[in-house]
Amino acid sequence: MECTVPLGPASTRLLLGHGSSQNLAETLSLSGTRVTVVSDENVSASARGRVFPDQDWLVVPPGESSKCLERAAWLWSQMLALGMDRRSALVAVGGGVVGDLAGFAAATYLRGVPFYSIPTSLLAMVDASVGGKVGIDLPQGKNLVGQFYPAKIVAVDPALLATLPEAEWSSGMAEVIKHGILSGGDFWSQLLSFHPADRSQDKKLEALVTAAVRVKVGVVQDDPFEKTGLRATLNLGHSYGHAIEWCSDYGMSHGQAVALGLLAGVRLSRLLGILQEDFEPELSALLERWGLSGTLPDSDDGRYSWERISLALGRDKKNKDGQWCFVLPQALGRVQLVYGPDRAAVERAFSSLLV
Amino acid sequence: MECTVPLGPASTRLLLGHGSSQNLAETLSLSGTRVTVVSDENVSASARGRVFPDQDWLVVPPGESSKCLERAAWLWSQMLALGMDRRSALVAVGGGVVGDLAGFAAATYLRGVPFYSIPTSLLAMVDASVGGKVGIDLPQGKNLVGQFYPAKIVAVDPALLATLPEAEWSSGMAEVIKHGILSGGDFWSQLLSFHPADRSQDKKLEALVTAAVRVKVGVVQDDPFEKTGLRATLNLGHSYGHAIEWCSDYGMSHGQAVALGLLAGVRLSRLLGILQEDFEPELSALLERWGLSGTLPDSDDGRYSWERISLALGRDKKNKDGQWCFVLPQALGRVQLVYGPDRAAVERAFSSLLV
Repeated sequence: MECTVPLGPASTRLLLGHGSSQNLAETLSLSGTRVTVVSDENVSASARGRVFPDQDWLVVPPGESSKCLERAAWLWSQMLALGMDRRSALVAVGGGVVGDLAGFAAATYLRGVPFYSIPTSLLAMVDASVGGKVGIDLPQGKNLVGQFYPAKIVAVDPALLATLPEAEWSSGMAEVIKHGILSGGDFWSQLLSFHPADRSQDKKLEALVTAAVRVKVGVVQDDPFEKTGLRATLNLGHSYGHAIEWCSDYGMSHGQAVALGLLAGVRLSRLLGILQEDFEPELSALLERWGLSGTLPDSDDGRYSWERISLALGRDKKNKDGQWCFVLPQALGRVQLVYGPDRAAVERAFSSLLV
Repeated sequence: MECTVPLGPASTRLLLGHGSSQNLAETLSLSGTRVTVVSDENVSASARGRVFPDQDWLVVPPGESSKCLERAAWLWSQMLALGMDRRSALVAVGGGVVGDLAGFAAATYLRGVPFYSIPTSLLAMVDASVGGKVGIDLPQGKNLVGQFYPAKIVAVDPALLATLPEAEWSSGMAEVIKHGILSGGDFWSQLLSFHPADRSQDKKLEALVTAAVRVKVGVVQDDPFEKTGLRATLNLGHSYGHAIEWCSDYGMSHGQAVALGLLAGVRLSRLLGILQEDFEPELSALLERWGLSGTLPDSDDGRYSWERISLALGRDKKNKDGQWCFVLPQALGRVQLVYGPDRAAVERAFSSLLV
């Protein structure tokens, strides 16, 4: 399956389905394009048997700490040492960290070289790999430096999920469930009928991943540069989620934090009288099914105090002129941006996660 | 005077003429845009009395060594510390180094914030400020990391040249003369009749600067991303020029190196039978008029040996598949790209600069 996602002046060709990663590798090989692969130590071991076995691989340590300026500088110097010119291509094979880092290196090396992406985690497949956001973290915060630089082709190949650790399934499913709320309708029903055991059924898994990717595609192609507010709806669950993630010192997975953010968001929406269809019972059941907790872990050190959470909420990129911004659900398939909600309600909805 | 330069999906508004820098400052002030200025220690002292006296200024040391990753990282951290968000603007006030560095910081901070430019050197006015190229150097070479990120508005204000040191006039005039060869016709005549004393005549100076900028505008708007080869013609004189600059360990000014490159280029063109109109006498007279030498300085250390020059020529970004590439004049107003010229002729033309 294949589609093209227009993203402003550029566009991304999306290859979807089992075997699409090999299709991309063959396409590049046939075109005679010189390829260098960026990956991490965890992924490269298994992936190199499958794609680009004879190309140069630049392998970084796994984890968010690789998404830094020093690692980008290392990539640039390696690309120079390999003699890459403006027609050489960089291919990311890995999760979100690898995709963001490699995409930033490709966007800036010699003012931009062709970039391709093979996401290997569920999270990267349904979220990070489509939409053109690339970048690195600074010591002061995540994703503070980057570009909009869409991959020319993204191959979303569910076959690569066969070896995905259980914790990463949970993290990815949180974003899939978020897409379910944004989409509602058939995709929500599909989610409700998809159980962990179904992951071994290629057709069912492919249908789920494809549907989840399509939600993201539908949003980013209508608002590629976050100008209209539409793309901001993908931030559902992320205001609370990012705040919780920061308070955990990034010890909590992104997906678990988003799961808690989705729950708190439904509750805040109810408190503000915005929620018209109460889907919390179904949401809670889905989160539980995928190993995502509905309550914050106990902590003696006050890391999840309202004081810290509200500090983090105050730094959300969606805020305007000091007003907090939340994406809140009205019903399945319908969300709205809310500026300056009652802070007591925001606190009450958050507190519900502590019990 | 004002015009709009389309550059792919973006475009640059160009304000030309005495007072245009204040016009830009007023425009930004009226729009309520939050402004942070990037400048260098030499320029900021005099410029701050003229534009943006009450805004935040981020001041870097003068010289090419500021166009580095460490300085970009410093800018990002300062922008964060100042609380700049995606609607805040960065304004470069300085020469080419400041424009390239600030533009790169603006292109990447929070995935891109609005960027404006007030070039203060002749070189930056007629060359670097229009066309969207921003970037930094790596230890391995110049301009290896960057982006195409056109300034929203560029104010080319010849009034700012009143305090320009004589050496910088020479360097800038080398690029103006290059534009004269590319353009030919009226602009070449204008150049021939413009003498150093005319710099104090506002109208004459403004007419010259405006005409030179228009040559660059005409080229970059037809080939913004260097795809067709047209933009590459701006590299006239730069194959030899970059090689000479590198051999001098960047002790020679860019303009002086380009001046020598222009001369050697005419001679190579004659040797290859490409030159149809021999304008070397006029070119030599112009270079001399603006303090640009037609011969290489004596050096006992062999820095300008053919061995070193040919090594540097081999690294030119225009080369393809190991073939050297030169932009060579056929006549005033007409140049061509030449791949794989006879290397003995390339050496002979270069050697003519040594006597």
